[in-house]
Amino acid sequence: MSVWTDWWAQEHASREEAGLVRTLRPRGADDPTIDLAGNDYLGLARDPAVTRAAATAALQWGAGAGASRLVTGTLAVHEELEQTLARDLGQPAALVTSTGYHANLAVVAALADRGTRVVSDAHVHASLVDGVRLSRARLTIVPHGDVDAVACALRDAEHAGERALVLVESVYSVLGDAAPLVELAGLCERHGGLLVVDEAHGLGVHGPGLVARLGLAGLDHVVVTATLSKALGSQGGAVLGPAALREHLVNRGRAFVFDTGLAPASAAGALAALHEVRRRPDLAATVHRRVGELATALDVAAPAGAVLSVPMPSPHAAVAAQAAALDAGVRVGCFRPPSVPDGVSRLRVTASAGVADDDWSRALDVLVGVVGTFR
Amino acid sequence: MSVWTDWWAQEHASREEAGLVRTLRPRGADDPTIDLAGNDYLGLARDPAVTRAAATAALQWGAGAGASRLVTGTLAVHEELEQTLARDLGQPAALVTSTGYHANLAVVAALADRGTRVVSDAHVHASLVDGVRLSRARLTIVPHGDVDAVACALRDAEHAGERALVLVESVYSVLGDAAPLVELAGLCERHGGLLVVDEAHGLGVHGPGLVARLGLAGLDHVVVTATLSKALGSQGGAVLGPAALREHLVNRGRAFVFDTGLAPASAAGALAALHEVRRRPDLAATVHRRVGELATALDVAAPAGAVLSVPMPSPHAAVAAQAAALDAGVRVGCFRPPSVPDGVSRLRVTASAGVADDDWSRALDVLVGVVGTFR
Repeated sequence: MSVWTDWWAQEHASREEAGLVRTLRPRGADDPTIDLAGNDYLGLARDPAVTRAAATAALQWGAGAGASRLVTGTLAVHEELEQTLARDLGQPAALVTSTGYHANLAVVAALADRGTRVVSDAHVHASLVDGVRLSRARLTIVPHGDVDAVACALRDAEHAGERALVLVESVYSVLGDAAPLVELAGLCERHGGLLVVDEAHGLGVHGPGLVARLGLAGLDHVVVTATLSKALGSQGGAVLGPAALREHLVNRGRAFVFDTGLAPASAAGALAALHEVRRRPDLAATVHRRVGELATALDVAAPAGAVLSVPMPSPHAAVAAQAAALDAGVRVGCFRPPSVPDGVSRLRVTASAGVADDDWSRALDVLVGVVGTFR
Repeated sequence: MSVWTDWWAQEHASREEAGLVRTLRPRGADDPTIDLAGNDYLGLARDPAVTRAAATAALQWGAGAGASRLVTGTLAVHEELEQTLARDLGQPAALVTSTGYHANLAVVAALADRGTRVVSDAHVHASLVDGVRLSRARLTIVPHGDVDAVACALRDAEHAGERALVLVESVYSVLGDAAPLVELAGLCERHGGLLVVDEAHGLGVHGPGLVARLGLAGLDHVVVTATLSKALGSQGGAVLGPAALREHLVNRGRAFVFDTGLAPASAAGALAALHEVRRRPDLAATVHRRVGELATALDVAAPAGAVLSVPMPSPHAAVAAQAAALDAGVRVGCFRPPSVPDGVSRLRVTASAGVADDDWSRALDVLVGVVGTFR
């Protein structure tokens, strides 16, 4: 045993002792299980218009972009996707990255440095947290949803002469609640801060996203990040905001500059999905109706997004309930430490519009039974 | 003007003054320019077997994986790709990520912490540097290619009781030289260090990569990272090494855990490209022959990989030469600060096997003329 193999074995043993070993379970293309675990909120990942667009782009452009975006990896399909994202989300400019994680890393690390104060909601995604770590900025983590704490931190930064960046999500992944975006944007405007809103769970489920719906798109002090891999059913990410921000990221966003451009199939798939989001508002309406039904049936509060979290008494109860649902043909997710900000294990159920009506009814019955047994 | 718009304007002005503004130039699918700028070293990005595999996967699986790998985003195509990568590269296990950047972030940040010494070659890629920043490990940057400096740092770490990680690339991007992998692996074995080798520019150009070619694959103290977006012509990344490392990353690799799975088209495209790499060793042979011709014609040393760097007297001369080549129908890349480790601007010319023979001859003539004028 070397130092490293020894360490891996120790780490594995402590995960096992805590009941927190995770393993990958590959699924087949024709898996008959009803999938309420993923993030394909509108069912667009397998929509024929979207998959055809992706397939056609692979044949036309190649399997990959072939280079970083600044070399020869910017294709016309990237430009069209960026222009369409900017138009649909009501923003002056958009920059597409190869994952949503890259978008958050690039924007935070390119905007913040040692002279910046980052004010972050306690529940933001790992990619925003990693962006802050890369930036080496002064970080103030505020309690989840606490507007007053953000106000205090912004006043403090203003007095200290620091540029301030506020990091939130429009809809949070674990609790499913929405950020108080109007208040936060107002605070940023008054105190010279820049609000960065991750629309990972808002885009598509709320049409062009909550920032646009609330009339905050196109403001100089509000920046949006998004993923193309959830409601848009593809892969990739984007940063949207002022043209000057885009130019800054093209030059200084390390996770953009030193990365191969997004695969043509993924860019074209996301572009086709954006078209479906505009054309079929019924998809988002189905999500909201279903998530309401589910919340009522399970007696939990309805979330702002497509994902319902059901608190469970222990990690073991959550895993047992998840297994029982799978035995009955319904796949749901499971949040366990360390993926939850508050240590509470939960079932994670997605009210996807991509599930057929009769499957949805059956899944609802299964979940009522399973949650009743293990909660 | 707000604090932020003001700052963007200042930053832009200083880039402009330094002659270092970068802009994106979208290209069309039928661009007639001879492309010697990208990283599609073997010409597989547009190979019909590869693009057909990508297109078929988009139609069969959907445009996206639909979820993170640990939820429902692990598809059979990911599993097949991982098994094939492991087999072809002679490694016990492989884990696929959605970009090469993600692979490097995940492996470094999951292995290193405040109790770790990271010994990094001065020329490693930005993604490895960012991985170290995320890890908060103690970092020793050694001069490029300096084996003795690595030895000293490893002895030092061993005496201090720190786990040590050595970061190198098999073939370096800018200078095109190969790392002294056999010596480095020997040092790591003697001193309990773990050697992490980024095969971004080695895989495909050297068949299964230099680690495998040198008989270092499958050793407990040698880990490989790779990208699927260069010689494999697709998108994505991978970490290869002991099964215990893979298990560790599945549980602790933040950039793996909190990211949507690689798009099915990209996974299938890379899988088909791996098959072509095995089946057609003539592709790599063409690269090596061409890079030798080019080096002789331009009177520079031949690199170990597919990319020839031609030092130019100034950023302006490099940009002017690049523009002159483009006017003559040949696209080459250009390294300028801050993308070069030593501040020397260079033309970057890829000897891709994907260029037709007569185009290659024409490009060679153009480059001899252009480099003669501006060097």
